[in-house]
Amino acid sequence: MTEIDRAACERHDAADPLRGFRDDFIIDEGTIYLDGNSLGARPRGAAERAQEVIAEEWGTGLIRSWNTAGWFEMPAALGEKVSGLVGGGAGSTVVTDTTSINLFKAASAALRIQREDAPDRRIILTQRENFPSDIYMLQGLAEQLDDGYEVRLVDDAEVTAGFPQSMSDEVALVVLTHVNYRTGRLFDMRSTTEAIHAGGALAIWDLCHSAGALPIDLAGDGADMAVGCTYKFLNGGPGSPAFIWVSEDLHNRFAQPLSGWWSHAKPFEMSPDYAPADGIRRFLTGTQGIVSMSVAEVGLDVAARADMSAVRAKSLALSDLFIDLVEQRLAAHPVEIVTPRDHAHRGSQVSIAHEEGFAIMSALIDRGIIGDYREPSILRFGLTPLYLGFTDVWDTVEALRDILDNRLWDTPEYQVRGAVT
Amino acid sequence: MTEIDRAACERHDAADPLRGFRDDFIIDEGTIYLDGNSLGARPRGAAERAQEVIAEEWGTGLIRSWNTAGWFEMPAALGEKVSGLVGGGAGSTVVTDTTSINLFKAASAALRIQREDAPDRRIILTQRENFPSDIYMLQGLAEQLDDGYEVRLVDDAEVTAGFPQSMSDEVALVVLTHVNYRTGRLFDMRSTTEAIHAGGALAIWDLCHSAGALPIDLAGDGADMAVGCTYKFLNGGPGSPAFIWVSEDLHNRFAQPLSGWWSHAKPFEMSPDYAPADGIRRFLTGTQGIVSMSVAEVGLDVAARADMSAVRAKSLALSDLFIDLVEQRLAAHPVEIVTPRDHAHRGSQVSIAHEEGFAIMSALIDRGIIGDYREPSILRFGLTPLYLGFTDVWDTVEALRDILDNRLWDTPEYQVRGAVT
Repeated sequence: MTEIDRAACERHDAADPLRGFRDDFIIDEGTIYLDGNSLGARPRGAAERAQEVIAEEWGTGLIRSWNTAGWFEMPAALGEKVSGLVGGGAGSTVVTDTTSINLFKAASAALRIQREDAPDRRIILTQRENFPSDIYMLQGLAEQLDDGYEVRLVDDAEVTAGFPQSMSDEVALVVLTHVNYRTGRLFDMRSTTEAIHAGGALAIWDLCHSAGALPIDLAGDGADMAVGCTYKFLNGGPGSPAFIWVSEDLHNRFAQPLSGWWSHAKPFEMSPDYAPADGIRRFLTGTQGIVSMSVAEVGLDVAARADMSAVRAKSLALSDLFIDLVEQRLAAHPVEIVTPRDHAHRGSQVSIAHEEGFAIMSALIDRGIIGDYREPSILRFGLTPLYLGFTDVWDTVEALRDILDNRLWDTPEYQVRGAVT
Repeated sequence: MTEIDRAACERHDAADPLRGFRDDFIIDEGTIYLDGNSLGARPRGAAERAQEVIAEEWGTGLIRSWNTAGWFEMPAALGEKVSGLVGGGAGSTVVTDTTSINLFKAASAALRIQREDAPDRRIILTQRENFPSDIYMLQGLAEQLDDGYEVRLVDDAEVTAGFPQSMSDEVALVVLTHVNYRTGRLFDMRSTTEAIHAGGALAIWDLCHSAGALPIDLAGDGADMAVGCTYKFLNGGPGSPAFIWVSEDLHNRFAQPLSGWWSHAKPFEMSPDYAPADGIRRFLTGTQGIVSMSVAEVGLDVAARADMSAVRAKSLALSDLFIDLVEQRLAAHPVEIVTPRDHAHRGSQVSIAHEEGFAIMSALIDRGIIGDYREPSILRFGLTPLYLGFTDVWDTVEALRDILDNRLWDTPEYQVRGAVT
């Protein structure tokens, strides 16, 4: 491996075909933002869009804006934009509610399908290292169904190997995060879904840590359902609404219990009798937060202009650089690279472990270099190609080197643990 | 009944102790807004708050704002503000998700309690004229539980009479809207809840059409759980997040299936094992839309400054005036007053029926007088005391008179039905 220097990083930035996207975001001077895997940065135009929604659509349009400003159609309209980024096809995605709630809907629908097709299957598999909320939602569902359903946790290696130990004719459903939120491990959607289908189970993918960061082909890879958020690599704003996708094969075959009026075939007839809408609208529930939804659209529109193959290429180049620099510049320190080196198994983040990870991250953040920390010892650095450059990675690792070489993390102020999101 | 004229209305306005609140809202010149029972008007400061959240908290604070800007605490912080308006007591309310989803949580939790206390009860009662989404959610839940649960619809008169026909030792739960969204009928919370408890059932109230419009005493009236929205009389913005309340008696006794990480006792430990938080946080699920939530707080803060008894007094005076004027000024026309005349049974709207209701409402809206229409023939006029005056009511009925006297509704352009929300 050749020695890298800052000048080389500057040359990479100058040649970066995605460089222009940096201007689509407003990030304070002096901030290097490496937490876009948790909350994406603010796109230019987001505040203006909120102003327009509040002053014009709400303030002047008032109730009429449900029709005239397209509010009622926003879940489907934004869904199409997400679909374009995740290979969902037309009319198969809506933006609504939260990822956790959408997973409950998807898992409920999948289990109900299996109840007809394979009534004895009662096991739900998911990664032990899946984002905990997904596990909790599946446990909540299994407990509510109260009919022998059981959530079993499997290690990442078991998933990668195609479920040799855990798949059986009792498995109804497998729910997988596409990228491990802690380690950044990426799972291969096609081969994993094939293994799930070969076992007779249905596959639900959680795309929270991959949508907007790499090319995804839900329909092409044979997934059954998917959920994900819009506030990480899609830059939709804090807590912006999530999405849910269902394979065309399952349209009109599924039912879900959160069957509010937005999922009704004719919501404005206000009938006391429920009749599900055709297609993906069946996954809607109630009235959506239009201000947050409108702001989310600004982030989706930026992502829609980007070539996801170029995004992926730059993401891997950034994470390769990060890993190389950690090896070259931090060699004197007990730092472990947690993220897989194999491109096929790497999402868009680099996680490194150090016993003093919390204090090191605090010291970094104090300099305006913002990553985050996950117990027990992991420093996470999200790499959003649309607003990060190669010199940002250089400067981050140099700051890490300075903090480690000079033990700058070793002060009481950096040891105080609060709630870290 | 003495003849009323506009001058009398002007005198009422001049003497109105709530008159100053009009300046807390921005409503276009020439608009009389009578649809606050569907979507409240825009409070002053809402756009500025969104700007602050997006530019400063998100833009500059980035991920840190989950702690430093109090984002993570918002459901509980806003819950306290709602609680002050509905008599919920401290630590018993959160603002989160949608009314439909919160009803699913509450009903799931209530049925689980009953399963322990009274395992043979399998019937859920609700009004036939409850807002349809509530009915659909209960049906979705009953179907999912798949264990003999059944949703039975009862007429408003049956509720008012204390369930003489429908209550039995099979009834587990009664879910009631506090105000009928179509007719404006108000149900007495205390006596109705007593009848429900006397029958051995639990009571969940939907406060969508009463919170912010009249004094509510959830704890004092003995309710078990309640849900409601913040975008009607609480002026939180389009689709702003809903609330959920649980009686202190039931704290830590309940479980709900939408058990995402925000309901976990220690969410940031990221444990694969679920452990519910104590208290009302157990009703949370996933990450909330912070922009919509922040804007909602502006509306809640306005309501918190208002004396709900004064709001109720003015609401009744406005609806009395509306009804009197309909009788005096529209006597020549086949208009039926649908809203109960009895104050004890009247919410904060006046609904009138006319066969050509749709076209009449279209003509009214064309003049900037905005109410709404509900099938089959109902014109609804929401009366929000904080931004409506007595002359507004006068001008509305006069416009109605002009439209009816001169058959101005009878043009093709007013007959075209779209989706009316």
